[in-house]
Amino acid sequence: MLKITSHQNPKFKAAVKLHSSRGRKQQNRFLIPGVREVQRAIGNAEIEVAEVLICAELLDAAMTAEVVDRCAQAKVPVFSLPIDLFGKLAYGERVEGLVAIAFRPTRNLDDLCLASKMLIVVVEGIEKPGNLGAVARSADGAGVSALISCDGQTDFFHPNAIRSSIGATLTLPCAEAESGTTRDWLIKNNFSIYAALVGAALTYQDVEYPQRTAIVLGNEASGLSQIWREPPIVPVALPMRGIGDSLNISVAAAILMYEAGNQFAA
Amino acid sequence: MLKITSHQNPKFKAAVKLHSSRGRKQQNRFLIPGVREVQRAIGNAEIEVAEVLICAELLDAAMTAEVVDRCAQAKVPVFSLPIDLFGKLAYGERVEGLVAIAFRPTRNLDDLCLASKMLIVVVEGIEKPGNLGAVARSADGAGVSALISCDGQTDFFHPNAIRSSIGATLTLPCAEAESGTTRDWLIKNNFSIYAALVGAALTYQDVEYPQRTAIVLGNEASGLSQIWREPPIVPVALPMRGIGDSLNISVAAAILMYEAGNQFAA
Repeated sequence: MLKITSHQNPKFKAAVKLHSSRGRKQQNRFLIPGVREVQRAIGNAEIEVAEVLICAELLDAAMTAEVVDRCAQAKVPVFSLPIDLFGKLAYGERVEGLVAIAFRPTRNLDDLCLASKMLIVVVEGIEKPGNLGAVARSADGAGVSALISCDGQTDFFHPNAIRSSIGATLTLPCAEAESGTTRDWLIKNNFSIYAALVGAALTYQDVEYPQRTAIVLGNEASGLSQIWREPPIVPVALPMRGIGDSLNISVAAAILMYEAGNQFAA
Repeated sequence: MLKITSHQNPKFKAAVKLHSSRGRKQQNRFLIPGVREVQRAIGNAEIEVAEVLICAELLDAAMTAEVVDRCAQAKVPVFSLPIDLFGKLAYGERVEGLVAIAFRPTRNLDDLCLASKMLIVVVEGIEKPGNLGAVARSADGAGVSALISCDGQTDFFHPNAIRSSIGATLTLPCAEAESGTTRDWLIKNNFSIYAALVGAALTYQDVEYPQRTAIVLGNEASGLSQIWREPPIVPVALPMRGIGDSLNISVAAAILMYEAGNQFAA
């Protein structure tokens, strides 16, 4: 196991830069924080892990041995860092002594594999990486086929998106695209599109979701753009029975995804 | 409108102390941050608002006039603070120039009104106020009758719980109690109890929820205690169809609450 001991180490300096969207674009790489997240990335054929960085003071010996062993099999170099350096790489509340650096896979619509039976979830204008990750986590649970982020202010490779998805943004088929392009792509590929809209006459449970279904949700502040408010898109409502007029987007998404996912699994 | 201009003002000093659980207990009062949250509190007969604090530099003139007018009608005194003082009272990301201080209502099981048709949600061992608030927000939307927090590390009056619920912790009937006491109270009152448990044979959609239904969820780290794992409690599963083995508690709660809430509304 190689060691990094200085703030001036070029590998360390490059890794720290992956905290910013600019750094991720420049290097075409991203940072994966956390034990479960890194394990899911290493186990996923579509993610090419460049290197793994560990902090022995934070990771127990058994886990360290397992990671080193697994990386050796996958021919991924492992670097060890002291805790002061590692703290500058780790992210969020859970600091677990393990991060990986991976190459960014492409995330275009055309990279999504089309099957005859598909449930796609589209989110528009998401600003917070934590919300995008939360939607991905629920989409994974519900059995969604793919997640598309339209016109978002964040990306699937933001460390907080990876973290709040517990790695699901790395394993779930995902794409980033503009809303208009995405709508046209869905229509061209014979998807029936349902958009969550407050006050729609049809509620989400009244729908018999067809073989190719797309469910679209807007962000909390501005809702859905006009692109998703016209035929052939079908508006569906989520009943609000109390004083509130909306749900958190990841909660609303989960309720709709589970209804459609359950119908698909039945 | 009265003015508070000094850090030494006793009202200001007392208000700042409401950020801590200890301060809330000592004063038997709590702080309500945010425009929508304060409006919901003032409109709710069960919440006795003691005073309202505004920051004219943060609140627009129309809103200020509306608040002052409404408080005059309700005979609630309004104090104006400069921005540097107000910043020490406000909470979280959205700083909106309006907080209220209210007396803590009691939140015991016996304060809940029993009806022949009731959907109660019970959460056990919640640590983060943001999670408790998120569950309350979804419970309000789903049409839940009451929310019970058992053995939690936080309370419904934590400013972050109020905030993430957008005021629903103030308007939804809520209670705090021990798990054993709550289970016995539910059984005594003829509730059928369903506990969300990974791997249960029955899934949540297979249940026809009876007139008095309680749904129980544990926290993510430790799950449900043994109290909720024995007959007559019925375990129900939420299908996990991807790589993840759990959902965020507020998401899992929302999916179950909406299924039961939809059945109740049908």
